[in-house]
Amino acid sequence: MTEILPSYVRGEWWTPADASSAVTVADASTGEAITRVSTEGLDLAGVLEYARTVGQRSLGVLTFHQRALLLKQFALALTERKHELYDLSKRAGATARDSGGDVDGGIGVLFTYSSKGRRELPNGQVYLDGPVEPLSKDGSFLGRHVYTRLPGVAVQINAFNFPMWGALEKFAPAFLAGVPSVVKPATPTAYVAEAWVRILVDTGLLPEGSLQLVSGGVPGLFDHLRLGDLVGFTGSASTAERLRSHANVQTGGVRFTNETDSINASVLGPDAVAGTPEFDAYVKQLMVELTTKAGQKCTAIRRAIVPEGAVDDLVEAVRTKVAERVVLGDPHAADVTMGPLVSVAQRDEVLRAVGALEAAGGRVLLGSTDAPQVVRADGSVGPAPDGAFVEPLLIGFADASADAVHEIEAFGPVASVLTYRTVDEAADLVARGGGSLVTSVATNDPAVATTLLTRVAAFNGRLLFLDRADARTSTGHGAPVPHLVHGGPGRAGGGEELGGIRAVLHHMQRTAVQGSPEMLTALTGVWHQGAASRTDRHPFRKSLAELAIGDQLVSATRVVTLDDIETFANFTGDLFYAHMDEEAAAANPFFPGRVAHGYLLVSWAAGLFVDPEPGPVLANYGLENLRFMTPVSPGDEIRVVLTAKQITPRETDEYGEVRWDAVIHNQSDEIVATYDVLTLVAKETDAAPGAAGTPAPAEVGA
Amino acid sequence: MTEILPSYVRGEWWTPADASSAVTVADASTGEAITRVSTEGLDLAGVLEYARTVGQRSLGVLTFHQRALLLKQFALALTERKHELYDLSKRAGATARDSGGDVDGGIGVLFTYSSKGRRELPNGQVYLDGPVEPLSKDGSFLGRHVYTRLPGVAVQINAFNFPMWGALEKFAPAFLAGVPSVVKPATPTAYVAEAWVRILVDTGLLPEGSLQLVSGGVPGLFDHLRLGDLVGFTGSASTAERLRSHANVQTGGVRFTNETDSINASVLGPDAVAGTPEFDAYVKQLMVELTTKAGQKCTAIRRAIVPEGAVDDLVEAVRTKVAERVVLGDPHAADVTMGPLVSVAQRDEVLRAVGALEAAGGRVLLGSTDAPQVVRADGSVGPAPDGAFVEPLLIGFADASADAVHEIEAFGPVASVLTYRTVDEAADLVARGGGSLVTSVATNDPAVATTLLTRVAAFNGRLLFLDRADARTSTGHGAPVPHLVHGGPGRAGGGEELGGIRAVLHHMQRTAVQGSPEMLTALTGVWHQGAASRTDRHPFRKSLAELAIGDQLVSATRVVTLDDIETFANFTGDLFYAHMDEEAAAANPFFPGRVAHGYLLVSWAAGLFVDPEPGPVLANYGLENLRFMTPVSPGDEIRVVLTAKQITPRETDEYGEVRWDAVIHNQSDEIVATYDVLTLVAKETDAAPGAAGTPAPAEVGA
Repeated sequence: MTEILPSYVRGEWWTPADASSAVTVADASTGEAITRVSTEGLDLAGVLEYARTVGQRSLGVLTFHQRALLLKQFALALTERKHELYDLSKRAGATARDSGGDVDGGIGVLFTYSSKGRRELPNGQVYLDGPVEPLSKDGSFLGRHVYTRLPGVAVQINAFNFPMWGALEKFAPAFLAGVPSVVKPATPTAYVAEAWVRILVDTGLLPEGSLQLVSGGVPGLFDHLRLGDLVGFTGSASTAERLRSHANVQTGGVRFTNETDSINASVLGPDAVAGTPEFDAYVKQLMVELTTKAGQKCTAIRRAIVPEGAVDDLVEAVRTKVAERVVLGDPHAADVTMGPLVSVAQRDEVLRAVGALEAAGGRVLLGSTDAPQVVRADGSVGPAPDGAFVEPLLIGFADASADAVHEIEAFGPVASVLTYRTVDEAADLVARGGGSLVTSVATNDPAVATTLLTRVAAFNGRLLFLDRADARTSTGHGAPVPHLVHGGPGRAGGGEELGGIRAVLHHMQRTAVQGSPEMLTALTGVWHQGAASRTDRHPFRKSLAELAIGDQLVSATRVVTLDDIETFANFTGDLFYAHMDEEAAAANPFFPGRVAHGYLLVSWAAGLFVDPEPGPVLANYGLENLRFMTPVSPGDEIRVVLTAKQITPRETDEYGEVRWDAVIHNQSDEIVATYDVLTLVAKETDAAPGAAGTPAPAEVGA
Repeated sequence: MTEILPSYVRGEWWTPADASSAVTVADASTGEAITRVSTEGLDLAGVLEYARTVGQRSLGVLTFHQRALLLKQFALALTERKHELYDLSKRAGATARDSGGDVDGGIGVLFTYSSKGRRELPNGQVYLDGPVEPLSKDGSFLGRHVYTRLPGVAVQINAFNFPMWGALEKFAPAFLAGVPSVVKPATPTAYVAEAWVRILVDTGLLPEGSLQLVSGGVPGLFDHLRLGDLVGFTGSASTAERLRSHANVQTGGVRFTNETDSINASVLGPDAVAGTPEFDAYVKQLMVELTTKAGQKCTAIRRAIVPEGAVDDLVEAVRTKVAERVVLGDPHAADVTMGPLVSVAQRDEVLRAVGALEAAGGRVLLGSTDAPQVVRADGSVGPAPDGAFVEPLLIGFADASADAVHEIEAFGPVASVLTYRTVDEAADLVARGGGSLVTSVATNDPAVATTLLTRVAAFNGRLLFLDRADARTSTGHGAPVPHLVHGGPGRAGGGEELGGIRAVLHHMQRTAVQGSPEMLTALTGVWHQGAASRTDRHPFRKSLAELAIGDQLVSATRVVTLDDIETFANFTGDLFYAHMDEEAAAANPFFPGRVAHGYLLVSWAAGLFVDPEPGPVLANYGLENLRFMTPVSPGDEIRVVLTAKQITPRETDEYGEVRWDAVIHNQSDEIVATYDVLTLVAKETDAAPGAAGTPAPAEVGA
């Protein structure tokens, strides 16, 4: 007997005492047994509670940036042992290219979340959404939207096709949010999931309880879920429906994010005739989608929607590409470019679906459903009756409106070919899918693209427009990227994953918080206009160790003269009439006459607030939200109030970002301009400036 | 017999031919019949289809700003006929203060959405979410998130307590998104809803099919819903559960936003002892929440959570306030400050719930469940057996952990009083509500506030912190504001309404769009770096009528000398060492030696791109996202490229906003700085500058 695949629960590796009911998992190419899975006797309620207590606690002491840094370390550890994962994945039918998507894709998600987490989240534990909303005229009562993490556990139920990417794209945002994960892989590829979890455990860096792995079934799991928990599910629509109907989801407030396979479309634009770069890009992409992961991708193209009369050109072009590029066989053989499906059960399922499509009027235009000749692991060629091999198949439909073609999914290397007469008809066909993860469009005509965006965006989670400019660099129809949301409405499950920080926020609760400036400052760690300030000494003399939000400088005043305006105009070359010509300026609806340049005002403000000697403030790297509110005329007197608003120390550098609230007033206390000044400030005063880490290219400011 | 209340469907007022099954609606204070409602024979499927076709079409030709302006006109029309709505509302039991919340509150939502729509949305039809995501190294393949409106109908099922505000807070965001509404009021107050709809219809400004009213039941409605439609529901958890379980919601992709009554809490902080301003604010707020709308608010305080030992002080203080302020009676009588519940059925329901609370250990601390003496319409005082009157009631619990107090809602002037020992215990009690719309906290101690935020934010849609600074200006525990989200997790329904533009986006689909810069520019109406540009003449010479996105200026070059840097330093007073001291500058980790001021660079850039003569560009009102990327040393040469990025003509002014993409390069083509320049530009060149509309105060820039 093969060994039982362990689970990782409550900080330990676990296997059942009694494995009599274990399920055997077989090699996709040979049918040979690899491992067995069982969770018999596992205390699932205890697993969840461990996450909610130990996991919440250990993640709760970390900031967003600290969690983000750990994600990077996990990514580095996986990169180092990548070959182990590639080797294992071959047994599931994955070629090197397939593992590029699953293994490297998964590692890429960790890197991206690590980087986005540090660039786009504060180095704290709550996330502010949108600007301050003033709720009283005197500024004493304000509103803000604050995201705080959910207090429960993220249960992640994954599909078999991406045991690594599919699991890590759920884990990374949960981890960054500070919500512990319980990962449940699909049985046919659970051994790949076990491998990456083991690599993370081996790093010794996983916060206690932040990641648990349940290798096998989870009967009754949903009975133990409650408000504050969430479920991320990838798989079939029917399983999703059953899980989502559980009372703890329906009325108990358990969040359920659902990503199911959909009948994705790819539209060939009317302009993209054979011979155009868009046609070539379309053909190449269709070939890639048919053969990558042997078509076992929820994002794969299921419906190729092409202009009437383009079918023959398309099928012949795909046939040529397949003949040139596709070598079907056991991924252990060197030159194989397309592997088997994950299991013979899955193969039979796909062939049944193809049968149903044929019964609904489909005709096989490319490929055959007969058992194919394949390259075996030893390089020999022949049939492989115990392997789950299926050839790439294109199925033509004379009647594009047949229900079956928009409803039946053959989850393998299978796409239907439908034709349209007008772009509106193409849009109708796309929408017939009832909600898709992705639709791609090959066109170089912005009018075609605009019609399709308007008509089908609401039915899709992602739209990819292929043209001659991006054909070479496109990441492809079937590849979700961590920067963009993945998921779609309706049949696609209605969920959203990835999309950068958006996915982190799906693990948090958005709460409107109302209070006084003082209280909001205390609650958010961001200084709010109207809260207490401190003016003990020049805040630019304070290192991050000394600086506190609310530290303030009220500058001296300075009178603006007409001579100053002219000097500035001549120095900068900015001779705009509002500064130079009294009569023309007065005719402008916004100015009383000649006024000072806005750039003069912010430049002078810097002169008024800067402390010139070397000190902890290293650089001004930018400025945000500058608004000029009141024009400044010759004779007006300005002053600036600068207040430390937000402090973001870096985890890996000797400095951090400080955002300053800047307000320029005139002699009548009117607000002349408001903006945020962005600076880099050293953590310690006595650290020599040169001791700070190497600056990132985007932050070398003056 | 009283008349049948009409519905407004397919652009016409409609009443049933056969009204034998009509339901009679009675005056809340007297029991006198007011009207009858029935939808017998109404073609609901036809109503929905009218919205999806005619309504979608008529809203689809309008931009966000045009829809926003209509909302303002609706608000003005309602304001003008406000007294009619106040008068009608009295029959439902609403005092003038209650109508302030419902009628003025509803009008306020329209004004707020009108204003936010024009300030925060583009004057177009798609909304961009987040920045560009570069997906290829060479910039030829980009990603963006785009919101497009849902293609269906928004069905809005409202509760009886806010026939106007409750309906308008759903209608306004749907309308702004461009999704037609079907409003279904609750029967007991359907006549108030009919009145405001009639006022809007009378304006003649409603786009055809954008608003329909169904006065009565909607049997089988959900069977006709499909992907692209959405339902906004406010009401009981049990009805919500039944509706949400419909297959068209569960698997059909119909969006369902749910806002149900919840067992909201109000926490008196340990520091807020009798005599403090926070104690007084807490008492006043509790009194208001008990009596406004006779406590018939989903946001009302149901659980007053107070320190052990504070109960007597609290109850006595509330008793005093009630004695001073509360006059229970028919709102038609002049001095009445608290009206009846909406119906005797509702009164009986509340008294049953109070009985259940008593049975679970509750003890009435304030008020009585006996039939009260009330002020009648004619000013006389006595019992009103046919009126739905209930006195304010406080119910004490010795055991704060009793399930009943966290689960049973008496939807009237009823709150329970619970005690805690530690702040953590208070947080546990708040969370026992299983998800609430709102929790308020009276404390002047930031540590108490922080603990509660961390512990209970995830269980609440809104948190209100009352302290001495905001006690007077607070909008109150029970009052949702259009700027902030309304809705909460778990028992509160899991939905989100309001929250400014957030609620508009709930009526739209977020789709990730990938493509080349050229294609994304065409699809979004916003110029993307890398798309085509046009340099025919200075873009500052072009009015909005002539300007197109992509219009570009490539400036001349200018060399920066050490003398320039010193001149600028001395003129502005900005003598920061990085500009003035070679050795100190070189010791800074970010600078090679003395460098030019960032403000010098943007000032010079303006000098390089400005066209000095009067013309269509009226003012530079601000600047966004300035980042300094590469320091500029003496001898370096800079130039700036300015490209029209986004054009937002105003609907009601003779000018609009133009956002320019600005990039400063050096002589090696490195990027020195990037930012957006914000300008106001006239619609027509020959319009005299003085002809432009009166500037708003926030935009008077130079």
